[in-house]
Amino acid sequence: MSAYRELEGRFRRMAALGEAAGMLHWDMSVLMPPGGVPARTEQLTALKLTTHEMKTAPDLADLLDAAAEEILEGPWQIANLAEMRRSWVHANAVDAGLVEAMTRAGSACEMVWREARPENDYARVLPYLKEVLNLSRQAASAKAAALGCSAYEALLDQYEAGGRTERIDALFADLADFLPDFLETALSKQVARGEAVKPAGPFDTNIQRDLGRKLMGVLGFDFDAGRLDVSLHPFCGGVPGDIRITTRYTEDDFTQSLMGVLHETGHALYEMGLPEDWHYQPVGSARGMALHESQSLLIEMQACRSREYLEFAAPLMRDAFGGSGPEWEVENLYRLYTHVERSFIRVDADEVTYPAHVILRYRLERALIGGDLALAELPGAWNDGMEELLGVRPPDDRLGCLQDIHWYDGAWGYFPTYTMGAMAAAQLFAAAKAAHPDIPERISRGDFTPLVGWMRKNLHAKGSSASTDELLETATGKPLGTDDFKAHLQARYG
Amino acid sequence: MSAYRELEGRFRRMAALGEAAGMLHWDMSVLMPPGGVPARTEQLTALKLTTHEMKTAPDLADLLDAAAEEILEGPWQIANLAEMRRSWVHANAVDAGLVEAMTRAGSACEMVWREARPENDYARVLPYLKEVLNLSRQAASAKAAALGCSAYEALLDQYEAGGRTERIDALFADLADFLPDFLETALSKQVARGEAVKPAGPFDTNIQRDLGRKLMGVLGFDFDAGRLDVSLHPFCGGVPGDIRITTRYTEDDFTQSLMGVLHETGHALYEMGLPEDWHYQPVGSARGMALHESQSLLIEMQACRSREYLEFAAPLMRDAFGGSGPEWEVENLYRLYTHVERSFIRVDADEVTYPAHVILRYRLERALIGGDLALAELPGAWNDGMEELLGVRPPDDRLGCLQDIHWYDGAWGYFPTYTMGAMAAAQLFAAAKAAHPDIPERISRGDFTPLVGWMRKNLHAKGSSASTDELLETATGKPLGTDDFKAHLQARYG
Repeated sequence: MSAYRELEGRFRRMAALGEAAGMLHWDMSVLMPPGGVPARTEQLTALKLTTHEMKTAPDLADLLDAAAEEILEGPWQIANLAEMRRSWVHANAVDAGLVEAMTRAGSACEMVWREARPENDYARVLPYLKEVLNLSRQAASAKAAALGCSAYEALLDQYEAGGRTERIDALFADLADFLPDFLETALSKQVARGEAVKPAGPFDTNIQRDLGRKLMGVLGFDFDAGRLDVSLHPFCGGVPGDIRITTRYTEDDFTQSLMGVLHETGHALYEMGLPEDWHYQPVGSARGMALHESQSLLIEMQACRSREYLEFAAPLMRDAFGGSGPEWEVENLYRLYTHVERSFIRVDADEVTYPAHVILRYRLERALIGGDLALAELPGAWNDGMEELLGVRPPDDRLGCLQDIHWYDGAWGYFPTYTMGAMAAAQLFAAAKAAHPDIPERISRGDFTPLVGWMRKNLHAKGSSASTDELLETATGKPLGTDDFKAHLQARYG
Repeated sequence: MSAYRELEGRFRRMAALGEAAGMLHWDMSVLMPPGGVPARTEQLTALKLTTHEMKTAPDLADLLDAAAEEILEGPWQIANLAEMRRSWVHANAVDAGLVEAMTRAGSACEMVWREARPENDYARVLPYLKEVLNLSRQAASAKAAALGCSAYEALLDQYEAGGRTERIDALFADLADFLPDFLETALSKQVARGEAVKPAGPFDTNIQRDLGRKLMGVLGFDFDAGRLDVSLHPFCGGVPGDIRITTRYTEDDFTQSLMGVLHETGHALYEMGLPEDWHYQPVGSARGMALHESQSLLIEMQACRSREYLEFAAPLMRDAFGGSGPEWEVENLYRLYTHVERSFIRVDADEVTYPAHVILRYRLERALIGGDLALAELPGAWNDGMEELLGVRPPDDRLGCLQDIHWYDGAWGYFPTYTMGAMAAAQLFAAAKAAHPDIPERISRGDFTPLVGWMRKNLHAKGSSASTDELLETATGKPLGTDDFKAHLQARYG
């Protein structure tokens, strides 16, 4: 057997074990009783260690070297081998002791953070966060040496393969230049057209669920190959063939859950459309977090907050909740779903202000990883940054640097992918509409086949067979840029 | 590190991976969408192969030999090492090719059986069953050589460690001698006291579920450490700390589901009471299928079909379903739940006729494995046996040799454990009542603490630290026997 084939067998096994762990994570978030925690931890640890041992087995390195000398069958195998190598580098650059210390420090810090946040007590979590940052910096250095990039880029590479700060700096600088004035314009326009009125609840959660399921079906979500459930933090889990998204319901507002469902359905469609033949190989995975987020934002933001979509969905909402009156009219709902506001919390932010939240975090985490900012100075730097980028100053750390779990949990280098995803969403939507100019009109009739079909062919089915920029270039004619995103904001809010 | 400690680490990992597979099986039976089958198969295969490779690793044999030379700390470690060895023998006696062929043949045969059964077409499934039996006989011979027992005993050992046909023959001969006349007596008595009346439905399934949960709680089932769900075939799954039982509901009869829930709760209580310190070690597992079945039958048959239990439960049933009238009275319900009848289907059989079903299967599978009966002759031999043991002749194979999945799925050697379990249940219940004579009266008040407490201390907490007979001897003063079972039948039906 060729070394490459042997590698395929090993990575297939690792992928299947990883998927088993994924399903167990889903179960833990959705329905596991509290008494299951110790056993589940034991199961997940066993799976993680087993996969780690497979990935750090000495002969795997030999196989990778041997496969590099073999003649492979076409570009998919070549791309697959490159992804195997990348995965190998991430697993082997950091020794087992450091990995374990990071897991332990991340868990401990996250636990303290869960209490420190509501108590607005940054000082309490600070020593734990210091430990997490310290270990992350060690891992970053080790990986940077192996990958031939900067420490920050080595962290970013875990979520966005080949991501480079030079590119991101340029993209974000462009947005940071454009957005402040644009936000003023959008806010003035919003004042001029008058406030939207929120439909009043209570909204039965079973009806919310049924409406969500119906709208998922409209998007092409196949309930024979997936589920919708409830969890505290909505997410998209499961595996191709069995994609499981979650949401949570509140009786006084159906929009929150519904928009969440549409967002996660975007993620789900990407997973459902990955190349089946490469399901258990690295090249068969979604390309990275930027493009993954592009698919959720494509559905939630680009498509489902459009006036066309609301022309289709508003009658269904009215029917579901027995709503009538002006607050249920398309125009009002459209204003509601495109409301812009300077706010402190990222996850509640709208399309126009969201990039400022991300740019702030990106700047801060680069400075922290680079050693240019001390954690003790983080709250002040955060608040200064908010003032500079968004014109508001958080009154406390709960609304400031304590709000996101990412750093406390050890996920450094993740934040930029949100806004890269927003830009990619606009770019892909524009390209899809250029190819199928009837997409908006079809959406207004609840027909997503041209949009989702184009996306499947031009993105989903390509897995990780090329880089993010290459995939975008093939699909849209250009690498990731800000033009379509700015044009989208102009059209909707300008 | 000592060889024994190293073995503990390896078996801990294997146990955790096995538990992961168990949870994924639960998910597959309870809520997985149909599209999940291929990925789930891949996950379970990866887990199975990984564990198999760990168990057949050449140095594991060396470790077992080395540990046998070490001075171990007390009887639990000694018993644990013995269980490790037994587990090793089962995994290593049969080569990987045969294991794979068995899995494949069992799946293929089971699939054909699912269609052949409703169509009453034994001839159609016969070639598949031949293949399964042929491979099972090969595996049995290989394991018999390694274990030093007969081929049939080697199969039995997979479910009931150390089970010997000489013992079972004697026990079953005693029952086969006692039961036919006793059945006549029971049936006459039943005629004399008049037919029970079945409460009429429909019975709302949500109310059935709530009543089931309430009665599980009464038994001591902890919903912070377990769940009740719905599946096509009821079972007890999950892991200690997260035990998951299932049932299925039909609107015209609440008894079927309720008795199923009580039965599975008996299994669950055993798992919940296993020694926590040994959770991931072989010695920490339930002793075997006979004792496992004893715990489900203890709860369902011994305790919850008693008049005392119905004194407690009947008012709850009436309240739940708004029932009134003579059919809801304790005496009628008691007659209903202790109804005796000659019937063709094992899973629907009562306590008095059930052993005949098992004895028949035990005789037939021994003859088939021993080569003394050809599969082509099975239908006739089955029907002759039913006539001899129970006095009824199945009109077709659907009601005869096609009814049970076991053989078609490759589970040879399992059947005797059902009746061994029934005997053990009676023996353990008698011993518990001897120790706590107030048990029946406490049950009539819905208080299971003395019964479950005794069972936990004398059985559950002992895991696999001794053999089935040793555990019974310590708990009840004697090895497995028929006396208490016959006395129980006499008291209830004689």
